[in-house]
Amino acid sequence: MKKYDKLIKNAVGRMVPTIINGEKHIPYQGVGKYKPTGRKHAPRIASCADYPIDGNKTVPSLKEALIKAGLKDGMTISTHHHFRNGDIIANQIFDIAHELGVKDLRWYPSASFPCQEHLIQYLEDGTINRIEGSMNGPLGKFASEGKMKGVGVLRSHGGRYQAVQDGEVQIDIAVIAAPSADVFGNANGVNGPAACGLLGFALADSQYADKVIVVTDNLVPFPCIPWQIQGNYVDYVVEVEKVGIPEKIISGTTRITKSPDRLLIAELTAQFCDEAGLIYDGFSYQAGAGGTALSIGNYFGDILRERGWKARFIRAGSNKYPVQMLEEGLVDYILDGQTFDLEGVRSMRENPGHINTSPFTSYNYHGKGIFATMVDVVVLGATEVDVNFNANVVTHSDGYLLHGIGGWQNCLFSKCTILPIPLFRDRIPVIKDEVTTICGPGELIDVIVTERGIAINPRRTDLLDKMKGSSLPVKTIEELKDEAEKICGVPKKPDLSDEIIAVIKWVDGTVIDAVRKVG
Amino acid sequence: MKKYDKLIKNAVGRMVPTIINGEKHIPYQGVGKYKPTGRKHAPRIASCADYPIDGNKTVPSLKEALIKAGLKDGMTISTHHHFRNGDIIANQIFDIAHELGVKDLRWYPSASFPCQEHLIQYLEDGTINRIEGSMNGPLGKFASEGKMKGVGVLRSHGGRYQAVQDGEVQIDIAVIAAPSADVFGNANGVNGPAACGLLGFALADSQYADKVIVVTDNLVPFPCIPWQIQGNYVDYVVEVEKVGIPEKIISGTTRITKSPDRLLIAELTAQFCDEAGLIYDGFSYQAGAGGTALSIGNYFGDILRERGWKARFIRAGSNKYPVQMLEEGLVDYILDGQTFDLEGVRSMRENPGHINTSPFTSYNYHGKGIFATMVDVVVLGATEVDVNFNANVVTHSDGYLLHGIGGWQNCLFSKCTILPIPLFRDRIPVIKDEVTTICGPGELIDVIVTERGIAINPRRTDLLDKMKGSSLPVKTIEELKDEAEKICGVPKKPDLSDEIIAVIKWVDGTVIDAVRKVG
Repeated sequence: MKKYDKLIKNAVGRMVPTIINGEKHIPYQGVGKYKPTGRKHAPRIASCADYPIDGNKTVPSLKEALIKAGLKDGMTISTHHHFRNGDIIANQIFDIAHELGVKDLRWYPSASFPCQEHLIQYLEDGTINRIEGSMNGPLGKFASEGKMKGVGVLRSHGGRYQAVQDGEVQIDIAVIAAPSADVFGNANGVNGPAACGLLGFALADSQYADKVIVVTDNLVPFPCIPWQIQGNYVDYVVEVEKVGIPEKIISGTTRITKSPDRLLIAELTAQFCDEAGLIYDGFSYQAGAGGTALSIGNYFGDILRERGWKARFIRAGSNKYPVQMLEEGLVDYILDGQTFDLEGVRSMRENPGHINTSPFTSYNYHGKGIFATMVDVVVLGATEVDVNFNANVVTHSDGYLLHGIGGWQNCLFSKCTILPIPLFRDRIPVIKDEVTTICGPGELIDVIVTERGIAINPRRTDLLDKMKGSSLPVKTIEELKDEAEKICGVPKKPDLSDEIIAVIKWVDGTVIDAVRKVG
Repeated sequence: MKKYDKLIKNAVGRMVPTIINGEKHIPYQGVGKYKPTGRKHAPRIASCADYPIDGNKTVPSLKEALIKAGLKDGMTISTHHHFRNGDIIANQIFDIAHELGVKDLRWYPSASFPCQEHLIQYLEDGTINRIEGSMNGPLGKFASEGKMKGVGVLRSHGGRYQAVQDGEVQIDIAVIAAPSADVFGNANGVNGPAACGLLGFALADSQYADKVIVVTDNLVPFPCIPWQIQGNYVDYVVEVEKVGIPEKIISGTTRITKSPDRLLIAELTAQFCDEAGLIYDGFSYQAGAGGTALSIGNYFGDILRERGWKARFIRAGSNKYPVQMLEEGLVDYILDGQTFDLEGVRSMRENPGHINTSPFTSYNYHGKGIFATMVDVVVLGATEVDVNFNANVVTHSDGYLLHGIGGWQNCLFSKCTILPIPLFRDRIPVIKDEVTTICGPGELIDVIVTERGIAINPRRTDLLDKMKGSSLPVKTIEELKDEAEKICGVPKKPDLSDEIIAVIKWVDGTVIDAVRKVG
């Protein structure tokens, strides 16, 4: 089998394969242009007659659970990433698969992290054929070097839900590491020694996988409350000594920036939002976990506090900063998709205004609406932006695939999407004629804020109008690009071969770009 | 089209049709014997591109929403019964259908109540072909007299979820009356002037219906928290002046009995449970909302209080009695499927230990287990029981279909199912050679408690052993029957024709019995 075949130029001008890992895929057609016509994936109907009458689904070990679940060659195995770099179960799954001599698995994590570098041996020996999911760090580097047997497929959090819901990816076995569970399989992330907040990334897996295994180190008497994962979807429950390392869910970037340039970017962003009328009593925003984004959130908090306003909700990845705002009464709700620190976990456990959400509610483009479109301001990062406002979030300027998409694509649907980015990184300009990899089409990206000026997407004439007469340094994106190039020179294109090592899905399951092998 | 056809004798010896309203149905095969082989119903894949970008799905009126949803002849329209006898929306739906000249609708309520007697005119004029759902009171009488055009189909709460999940009933339009909602369609039953507790009976409808309309009289800013119904399943939102009459959710039977006979039955039941070792620190039970059942719950509370024990959970239909126990600390959780009074509503709103459940978690037999099997003691009513412990809960001894199944069939799967019933009602014995309608097979009914003795199902040798030497009046069911007949005489069989007016589904979708026309 060819890894990929039948390349076609898609609606953003990128050559993408339409046969990937032997399966047909649809090229990107434009925002909202591809309309699905089929029906959702229909899981097999189960019967209570086949499950223990006393509700006790425990089996003695993960190995036994995987064998009972019918683990065999070619299957799709899913995991979630709520433990982020503190995950320990994914490695164990593939140790067991390797021990059992199972080959050619598709690993379908909601994201992978450096702690899973351990799995490179199984990508090499054929235990794992490919990763479909973000590959942060070493696994991405491995793929970028053309060493993965199959083609990687990267999806946003919403796209991952969509792919499972639509039957594009059929999960054979979902393994859900859970900080708390009962013998029936009800599970949550808020309680227990390894509490990681919530388990929303595993929701689709629980609903649609053929077999579902819950793994926990904190078995509580039925009922496990809250049941973020419902035991009625679960086949087996495994008790282990340790299910994850919660201290490692903390991302290294969840500290307010101290860089003067980044602080300036944050301040410009907040001021822009204020002058554009985006901040009001009852507004909503999403700021990520990066240092600049956190700083912007702080500015928003200051504005609310000064004016006696209250935000209606913060969409999060939560950490101590939005939690402080919730506890101070500056916001009604945190709508949280993943907790980025232990304060986020505590708040979700204690505060009824700290709501756990899922990719279904927030991001699934193939639903009857999503929360993402109702957010007033979204602040996101990017590795590169081009003069048409297309942006890249997965590859570096050297072409290496080192990041996942996360909820980034999904968030682009907000009322105003702002990318606060430095004009250059390591003396390489961030604004280019063409980004290495298109992850988000320019028509959804409204504003670029750099330390040397703000570029508004010409499509947003409303925002341009509002900025007339502003003291803010509003420029065209070409002006910003020229400034950077005057300082750093025109950046070199990365040294890439023609070989495709991964594809990037759009939120509707179409292929928006392909990632090439480095060198 | 014949209303029904091809009768066959099923596993409990009843003649049931296998063609009902033109569709094929499977006869009952025994508990756990019928194994589904298909896949769940697969709803159409939606696209956010077809929904308002600002998330606002409101339309000006229910009529407009029904027209937008494509209301037409022969469709299946569903409603929930959380307002019980205080529902007002179901009548409005069919007033609109009648006004639009739409015919031949299947009404699929989770239950119907006397307040919907208004709909008899539409059953007569062909607007509604039939009701599939319980028919409490006048609608049941109408059906029993052979006046409904189609054959009624009665399902348990779990069976209703199963039928929708399995695609046996495909809902075209679900109308969900909601005490609180936002413009996106997130909705709950705990807040607002018409708060009725929860909306769990509408869960399947929201997940699987082609079009979903949320109707509310309390539109709150997004997000409506909690979202018991997720807006991502919702097509249209309608604001009305009044969505339901919450005072009327109170069932007339939610008062502790004062009848000496019933108090004796309650005391005997509690004592039996205690002597049989069914009550322990951490046990669980479900008691219904009838006067005897409430009294049994009180006895359970006394036992817990005296011994310093705590129940793990009460499965409910909640009202002030379990709420008092929760607030007194006699139980960790109430797992609630519907609130029976406003104290239940308040408690669900305020107490994090008062958990809203759904027919999916509690009752759906075609899931990977159900909560119902994990309950230690379940106390249920019955209109008739036969000497093989088969029981009837839908027809009276005169043959009239006046009650729904509710969760009754589903609860039979508990560890010990007890029917505390009077030996006779209006001088008609309750224990018979044969019940008029079999709703539950005798093998799942463990104990009958009457004011004159306790009969244990001979299959439960464990319970018989535990009662050896007890001072309780343990008798055979035949002895109880003989006692009643000595006092009241042998009861007459009801006067029924051969014509089938409704069928009773078992929890797995098979047909366990048929209900005949009276007279």
